Amino acid sequence: MEVQHCFILEKSGKFLLFYLEGTTVMGALTIKDIAKICGVSVTTVSRALNNYPGINQETKDKIMEVVREKQFIPNNSARNLKKLENHSIAVLVKGVGNPFFQPMIATLEKFVHKQKYTFILQSVNDNEDEIEVASQLSLEKKPKGIVFLGGYFKHTEAKLRQLDLPCVICAVGSIDEKSSNVCSSVHVDDIRESYRIVDYLCKAGHKRIAIFAATREDKSISALRLEGYRRALADNGLPVCEELIRYSNEGENIYSMERGYHDMKKLLKERDDFTAIYAISDNMAMGICRALKEAGKRIPDDYSVAGFDGLDMSSYYIPTITTVKQPVREMAEAAAEILFDTIENGRGVQHRTFEGEMLIRESSRAIN
Amino acid sequence: MEVQHCFILEKSGKFLLFYLEGTTVMGALTIKDIAKICGVSVTTVSRALNNYPGINQETKDKIMEVVREKQFIPNNSARNLKKLENHSIAVLVKGVGNPFFQPMIATLEKFVHKQKYTFILQSVNDNEDEIEVASQLSLEKKPKGIVFLGGYFKHTEAKLRQLDLPCVICAVGSIDEKSSNVCSSVHVDDIRESYRIVDYLCKAGHKRIAIFAATREDKSISALRLEGYRRALADNGLPVCEELIRYSNEGENIYSMERGYHDMKKLLKERDDFTAIYAISDNMAMGICRALKEAGKRIPDDYSVAGFDGLDMSSYYIPTITTVKQPVREMAEAAAEILFDTIENGRGVQHRTFEGEMLIRESSRAIN
Repeated sequence: MEVQHCFILEKSGKFLLFYLEGTTVMGALTIKDIAKICGVSVTTVSRALNNYPGINQETKDKIMEVVREKQFIPNNSARNLKKLENHSIAVLVKGVGNPFFQPMIATLEKFVHKQKYTFILQSVNDNEDEIEVASQLSLEKKPKGIVFLGGYFKHTEAKLRQLDLPCVICAVGSIDEKSSNVCSSVHVDDIRESYRIVDYLCKAGHKRIAIFAATREDKSISALRLEGYRRALADNGLPVCEELIRYSNEGENIYSMERGYHDMKKLLKERDDFTAIYAISDNMAMGICRALKEAGKRIPDDYSVAGFDGLDMSSYYIPTITTVKQPVREMAEAAAEILFDTIENGRGVQHRTFEGEMLIRESSRAIN
Repeated sequence: MEVQHCFILEKSGKFLLFYLEGTTVMGALTIKDIAKICGVSVTTVSRALNNYPGINQETKDKIMEVVREKQFIPNNSARNLKKLENHSIAVLVKGVGNPFFQPMIATLEKFVHKQKYTFILQSVNDNEDEIEVASQLSLEKKPKGIVFLGGYFKHTEAKLRQLDLPCVICAVGSIDEKSSNVCSSVHVDDIRESYRIVDYLCKAGHKRIAIFAATREDKSISALRLEGYRRALADNGLPVCEELIRYSNEGENIYSMERGYHDMKKLLKERDDFTAIYAISDNMAMGICRALKEAGKRIPDDYSVAGFDGLDMSSYYIPTITTVKQPVREMAEAAAEILFDTIENGRGVQHRTFEGEMLIRESSRAIN
């Protein structure tokens, strides 16, 4: 196969691509120039580039050095470089280790690459302000847009406006009305979905339901899911027992199996006046199941357990976990679509609420 | 608190940072200039920037517009901008959805940010050539170094040299001798670790052990772990039954729970002449457990199950999974350390082999 040669020029951060077939482009380097610099024939350069036999190793090394030095890149890679502008999308994740975000990150990454954009991932620590992280990143890398995954999102409209970039907030509890004029969002209705699963437990005869929430101070999804819990109990004529609301400590890996496991052990030592445990993440629910199993309790015979999220894993666990499934892949796709719609078509802010799916599985049962 | 004001200048892709306290830096804009442009006092600009009350909304909007337009960014964010050069590290992952890579990605991401570099994540599809993906990325984003996670790594030395960037290959089966002159690596010895767990099963009395491997054509970690399996059987005087080697189909999500689940169902229909199943990933092992449970089989009474990787999750599963734990966080840290050692100190290629840890847990038992 004959090889087309090309040359890349960098100009103010953008790359210009020239295909050279013998002709010289002003200021660019052809295969002839490389031959001249190395004092060899064009054929020899071509042989070196294509890794053909019959060429002296020393000559080849010399040619390759010049090629590298001048940033001349041969054929295949170059062919793919149609859209070489410096475009990127940044995804900021609060809780990058949380498996809930994993299919979202994978979906976003694929979508972004299909659009020939670079994918920048940045985790935001619990004590960091995502907008400040975004501002800094925006200065450094000039992404064309940002997706925020998770976290707490109550920033002033002015602060959001200062970012001055298309943004989509995904799987974040809620944003206030003013912020929603600036940022698009994709989420489930956490109050409603949480209500749904607690209402199911109530109607299944459970009158004492423990809930594993985030910290007492949380103002994000945990607060909303807790609100759903309270409303469902109230509508079913059940009192809220504050001792059955289990908050996490600051700094714990709040939504993890580990936390569910340790806090369940603690709860079992403290009291036994409940028949069901609702964790606001499947991860915690699985940790809770493990703690119950180690304490010799049977699920769902002794205790019903319910989670939230619908992680793939929750359908392979023994027992399978009763949960509300969030359509994470669809949500991530929607976030990416909205973002590109804004970047490329100038579309304004959009908000999409997805419906969760209630999955009643092995970990829970009716007791009435 | 008095606020320090600063100004950012972009110059050939790099940012220069000036702290301004009343003084004018040549060519830069001070808070005074902004006040002049807007026809207001310095105090008013300061009030607007700090979101203080007692300022007319219209004036504030006008000031903020000028600020945005001139890319003047106030205090907090700017303080963090000490190292604003355009440095980034790229991580290329083959199998971005695999939970095995998740703590590695999280660890790398944190390490990279601590060094004030940008973290670029890129997934590589199974049918893509990671070096071509890296070449393209390298042209577009000019990362200072690359970490490759997973995949098949048999590239010619010349091809690797052409990348001309510090590279670390992490959790990839093995690299050939010549490649190892160009790229650093961090891994476990897959043959030895696989041997270890199969040897344990043999010594526990299992004479017919099924193995769930990747595709028949695989030349990467699956081939190595299969080799460990064959050697362990041989050393224990056991014949290899080719029908008990279960390969995956092309295009399946090879290391997933789903695959373990479906292929176990199939295996149970075909034959029952085995007492143990060894899956080359914990994910598969958990899917296998689920399939056994649905078929009414007891673990480990009817079948012993073993995995590989030591995912956190495998210790919360019911039953907990016997496995070989790879020290993923330490491996990712080592990969990052080696990379920065090369980038910042010019250190040469380094190779580190980590030891796995054998974890005998509930999913397996001795039958002799």
